[in-house]
Amino acid sequence: MSSSSTCLPQQALKVGKVGFGTFGQFLAKTMIKQGHTLRATSQTGYSHICHQLGISFFRDVIAFLEADNDVMLIATSILSLSEVLRSMPLHSFKRRTLFDDVLSVKEHPRNVLLQVLPEEMDVLCTPPMFGPESCKNGWKDLPFVFEKVRVRDEPRCSNFLQSFESEGCRMVEMSCEEHDKLVARNQFLTHTVGRILLEMGIESTSINTKSFETLVKLKESMTTASFNLLDGLFTHNRFTQQEVCNVTNQKQASTFSTNKFRNANVVYNYAVDEPRAFFSNGQAETAKENGRRTKS
Amino acid sequence: MSSSSTCLPQQALKVGKVGFGTFGQFLAKTMIKQGHTLRATSQTGYSHICHQLGISFFRDVIAFLEADNDVMLIATSILSLSEVLRSMPLHSFKRRTLFDDVLSVKEHPRNVLLQVLPEEMDVLCTPPMFGPESCKNGWKDLPFVFEKVRVRDEPRCSNFLQSFESEGCRMVEMSCEEHDKLVARNQFLTHTVGRILLEMGIESTSINTKSFETLVKLKESMTTASFNLLDGLFTHNRFTQQEVCNVTNQKQASTFSTNKFRNANVVYNYAVDEPRAFFSNGQAETAKENGRRTKS
Repeated sequence: MSSSSTCLPQQALKVGKVGFGTFGQFLAKTMIKQGHTLRATSQTGYSHICHQLGISFFRDVIAFLEADNDVMLIATSILSLSEVLRSMPLHSFKRRTLFDDVLSVKEHPRNVLLQVLPEEMDVLCTPPMFGPESCKNGWKDLPFVFEKVRVRDEPRCSNFLQSFESEGCRMVEMSCEEHDKLVARNQFLTHTVGRILLEMGIESTSINTKSFETLVKLKESMTTASFNLLDGLFTHNRFTQQEVCNVTNQKQASTFSTNKFRNANVVYNYAVDEPRAFFSNGQAETAKENGRRTKS
Repeated sequence: MSSSSTCLPQQALKVGKVGFGTFGQFLAKTMIKQGHTLRATSQTGYSHICHQLGISFFRDVIAFLEADNDVMLIATSILSLSEVLRSMPLHSFKRRTLFDDVLSVKEHPRNVLLQVLPEEMDVLCTPPMFGPESCKNGWKDLPFVFEKVRVRDEPRCSNFLQSFESEGCRMVEMSCEEHDKLVARNQFLTHTVGRILLEMGIESTSINTKSFETLVKLKESMTTASFNLLDGLFTHNRFTQQEVCNVTNQKQASTFSTNKFRNANVVYNYAVDEPRAFFSNGQAETAKENGRRTKS
């Protein structure tokens, strides 16, 4: 039987969204269209956007938690996830709910959710491999990765997953570890190259080649939110940090990993604060250190 | 009147191709389909491929020059252009022919052609902004840039340009200088990023994002020929060298340009031999120099 046969006919769910930035809003539009009832809370005030979309916005977290949600969909930034969830009185929350995260890394939210949630709560980790910029023509055939980390209410979980399956997503069941390992290089590289192009201010011309057009599109997909994402991808995917070593040349990488990589901030500075230097072969770092020594 | 109204109905031309690598072969296939008669000469032996395509291949350059061509289409690499043309006895060549180059820079071939050709020869410079990898679905709407550098036989020139116009190319008349200035950053950046991705050996996964897919496609468009092209773009487009300075950050760029950029090889080493370092902010270079000093 195909995977779709395991799903019940889709039923309307009450979905509470924790975090309502660009990605949260993007998902909400399709879920509303599908007939689900949405509520949202966020550290940033999104009441106006929620009002426009017909979503109840809760400033009061306790009222939000008591709003009888079937699913709590976590769409914070990677960096703020832990702080946001730990600020919520989740242990006083009695309804047995499915918590799902849609962050671009998986091991980190899985670990946080398992730490902060009462044991009765179900946990699903689901990074859609697309976003507002990459699926203007719908979600058909785009990969949607999921791991049922702790799911006891299977019908509810399948019903929720059907929100993506019914839009034509290619559903890929994969462990959190496998996902993070597989995407570490790709995600980090995509965002680093994109950020370099943005910093360079590359612009379309009247005589673009097709290849250059792909770079312009990549640059255009970079937003302020992408900078936080790049940061999150580096600090909360342990495989990314390994990839940074692989990216430098072999000779330099060995020095890098044995002597300096213990301090992840050194790599982080180059990759996030100085993305162009991310592509250097490690010598930039030596230069910087030489510079510091000269100054001191 | 539109530009197409200046063209005569297309007539079959006898076209001699100087250089018959990937790009030369790619253009030849469409020109044969259009009914033109093609002949080719090349420093590399392409007789087998020419035979397959129904093109006469000349090892003997004098016989090639005497083969009564209406148009001589120059499709050498940027780097070998000058050597190839200077090795041909062009001044003993009596037929008044149109010389057209299809190289990815324009000022350089224009200058070489004006230097080496007898004054009676017409000169057209035409970089198509596409290649075998980027137009698998035909040439429609792809930009084709041209400058009539020295054209006295207008009907023949228009007839030749119609080979591109009739395939649906967007014809863009532009000076060589304007073209080189406009594409300097784009071309160099595209090939440098592509080469980095190739060196990194990035591979498609089952859960690619759309953005990462664009990088995979860019990597796949890089061939051995692209390496020579990157080299040519740097050494034979004077605007590229300026762009390399712009790419480094402002502070470093000033040091770069005033103290070191006089020696273009310094930049060249980073951009072509060590492309990852091209993205560093200039400190890599200092490090390298420090290293040399330490060793000496």
